[in-house]
Amino acid sequence: MPFSLTPLLGKRPTEGREQFAVERVGTVVEPRRRMFELLKTDTSSKARVGRLTTAHGVVDTPVFMSVGTQGSVKAIDPRELREMGAQIILGNTYHLNIRPGMDIIRAAGGLHAFINWPAPILTDSGGFQVFSLATIRKIQAHGVEFRSHLDGSLLFLGPKEAMGIQRELGSDIAMVFDDCPPHTSTPRELRAAVERTMRWATECREQPRAPGQMAFGIAQGGTRSDLREECAKALVALEFDGYAIGGVSVGEPEPEMMRAVEMTEPFLPANKPRYAMGLGTPAQLVELAARGVDMFDCVLPTRVARNGTAFTRKGSISIKAGAYKADFRPIEEDCDCFACRNFTRAYLRHLLNVGEILGLRMLSVHNTRMFIRVMEEVRAAITNGTFGEFRRQFAENYVPTQKVLLARAAVAER
Amino acid sequence: MPFSLTPLLGKRPTEGREQFAVERVGTVVEPRRRMFELLKTDTSSKARVGRLTTAHGVVDTPVFMSVGTQGSVKAIDPRELREMGAQIILGNTYHLNIRPGMDIIRAAGGLHAFINWPAPILTDSGGFQVFSLATIRKIQAHGVEFRSHLDGSLLFLGPKEAMGIQRELGSDIAMVFDDCPPHTSTPRELRAAVERTMRWATECREQPRAPGQMAFGIAQGGTRSDLREECAKALVALEFDGYAIGGVSVGEPEPEMMRAVEMTEPFLPANKPRYAMGLGTPAQLVELAARGVDMFDCVLPTRVARNGTAFTRKGSISIKAGAYKADFRPIEEDCDCFACRNFTRAYLRHLLNVGEILGLRMLSVHNTRMFIRVMEEVRAAITNGTFGEFRRQFAENYVPTQKVLLARAAVAER
Repeated sequence: MPFSLTPLLGKRPTEGREQFAVERVGTVVEPRRRMFELLKTDTSSKARVGRLTTAHGVVDTPVFMSVGTQGSVKAIDPRELREMGAQIILGNTYHLNIRPGMDIIRAAGGLHAFINWPAPILTDSGGFQVFSLATIRKIQAHGVEFRSHLDGSLLFLGPKEAMGIQRELGSDIAMVFDDCPPHTSTPRELRAAVERTMRWATECREQPRAPGQMAFGIAQGGTRSDLREECAKALVALEFDGYAIGGVSVGEPEPEMMRAVEMTEPFLPANKPRYAMGLGTPAQLVELAARGVDMFDCVLPTRVARNGTAFTRKGSISIKAGAYKADFRPIEEDCDCFACRNFTRAYLRHLLNVGEILGLRMLSVHNTRMFIRVMEEVRAAITNGTFGEFRRQFAENYVPTQKVLLARAAVAER
Repeated sequence: MPFSLTPLLGKRPTEGREQFAVERVGTVVEPRRRMFELLKTDTSSKARVGRLTTAHGVVDTPVFMSVGTQGSVKAIDPRELREMGAQIILGNTYHLNIRPGMDIIRAAGGLHAFINWPAPILTDSGGFQVFSLATIRKIQAHGVEFRSHLDGSLLFLGPKEAMGIQRELGSDIAMVFDDCPPHTSTPRELRAAVERTMRWATECREQPRAPGQMAFGIAQGGTRSDLREECAKALVALEFDGYAIGGVSVGEPEPEMMRAVEMTEPFLPANKPRYAMGLGTPAQLVELAARGVDMFDCVLPTRVARNGTAFTRKGSISIKAGAYKADFRPIEEDCDCFACRNFTRAYLRHLLNVGEILGLRMLSVHNTRMFIRVMEEVRAAITNGTFGEFRRQFAENYVPTQKVLLARAAVAER
């Protein structure tokens, strides 16, 4: 769909300059209108089609959210994102707080204005980064003391700080500050993390928010069904606007990931969106949608582009491989992305081979469009009552990576 | 000007896929129609407005040509190039011959098809790269034996090979294979280079070309007026389609560069385009246009983008500088490029600071559009009879770099 650049004038601090006109941008939606509508539930699975109304526009679910960690989806600009049908992107509290810092984002008028994405934004709380990136961390009652991964300076992030930053960022959906433990945690560590998560979720719930900003809780608990149930129920009691399943993209094998989702989902209300954080491959997105998940975010599309890997319905292919050097077909024959409409595998391979940035750009564009398009097809299939068939066919065509296949085989043998 | 993507189907090998519809793309122009029309000459200087008709479309001169060395203008895609008003781009014989190699480009149907730029392309011959990049070179009668900078393999490039490769690339303008000596050469070395250049130009002239392909001669001679005159006259006698002034972007101080052009230009015919290879800064482009130059190519716009430097009418500014961290103006207030229409200095600075590719992309876009726009303004000024005033004002506003200022001062003191 062609992207039209219509001037939106008179908005400080970019007064007098063009901004993107996007179909769904609007004024800040009244809080009472913030809602999630469940439009249809599949009969062959737990999949649902929904519509999430945020302060900066409507999001049809299931939805894949591109990750703009540092205020930019890697190598892709907002126009390209809109052309690809991107509805909502992610920003990262931990990183944006360090650079550019809240002074600048505040002066810019919030994150939407700073990055020129006048459409929905979800920010994560920084919990995952603190628990995985930062060094020398001391977990305290109301948050975590840690050293910046950049310059080693001593910082503190907890429910109050994380919600405060997200309020200033002005994202449409703010995530609670949680304790995200490694998948190798002991039962004792898992329990401690869950208790901390529940306590901190309560604190987050009490914090003031930006006008129209929603807050989502995050359920932890590893693959302990008792912990997953306990955590989910505690969050639901706090009446968040949506519920995420955390601890499902932390290096655990795929079967464990699915189990963690299956253990949590039954305790999440049907009339609120469910968000599986950090997931997944195209095939996993379909399977998770079938398990009742509505929202996803993953760095895979842009991260693997760096290595010249492209996602297709048949699995991932390495465009850099010698096999493609004189292959003048697009990455995927029926793909409507900018890369596939304009360039051949041979050319993209050449670009990647000689280190030309256009190669990385085009693979990122293709992969991102592919993920978004799969979600469009999932929504259409659920709406048309054909999701069961779609799901079956998708899995049949999609060749998982060796790693995933080995993990599945290992579980099957147990 | 909005870019419209209209399908052009049925062109092998991209049959069935969309290509860019560009205003001026057409079928290959009949050889007898290949021509340069001199439309107007400025009365206050030697500046001219011209129209060059090539096999893949028309080019209005003076023109700035973006450099797509390896088949891609760094970080910029063809759609962005067209939006910026790019009329013609460069490709590099030396690099493309090594990667992806002629087998692949041949199979793709030529360079235009391979990179999806169905508009004019000029290829340089590889002479400069051989004389500057490659190691262990042995200059022989019919070319240069050298070792590839990539893998050290022994290669040979001379008039026959260079024209042969360019014929296969199918560029609209092919450059002759010349001897481009360092500006520190002795008079003896300069003379030898000029004699070799003249001999090789004759050999190049005899080689077969792609249908509709033009060939330009390259005049060498350093700042020796006798050599410059001799070389230019010899090339003109060979009746090339256009004439380049070489050896003017090889590290010499600006005053020498201008002198070299001034020594050569009087001997070049008015009814053929003049091309100053590898030049220049925006201010230099205006000054060289005033001296009768019609065509320019330079890596500056994209190269300095890497360092966060942006070109403006007032000279170059370092967007990465701390001064801009909360500056919410565009790079240049009245610039119509994608970057200035959509992003602030503060945001771009942040992107550059954290290494996000979008920052590099946007600075490349701004700089390239700036260079192209200066040429548009030069053409308009010449056409309107206001070039003298335009030139004066441009020089008044443009603050050159320290390096250029020092060189000018040094010459003034001699």
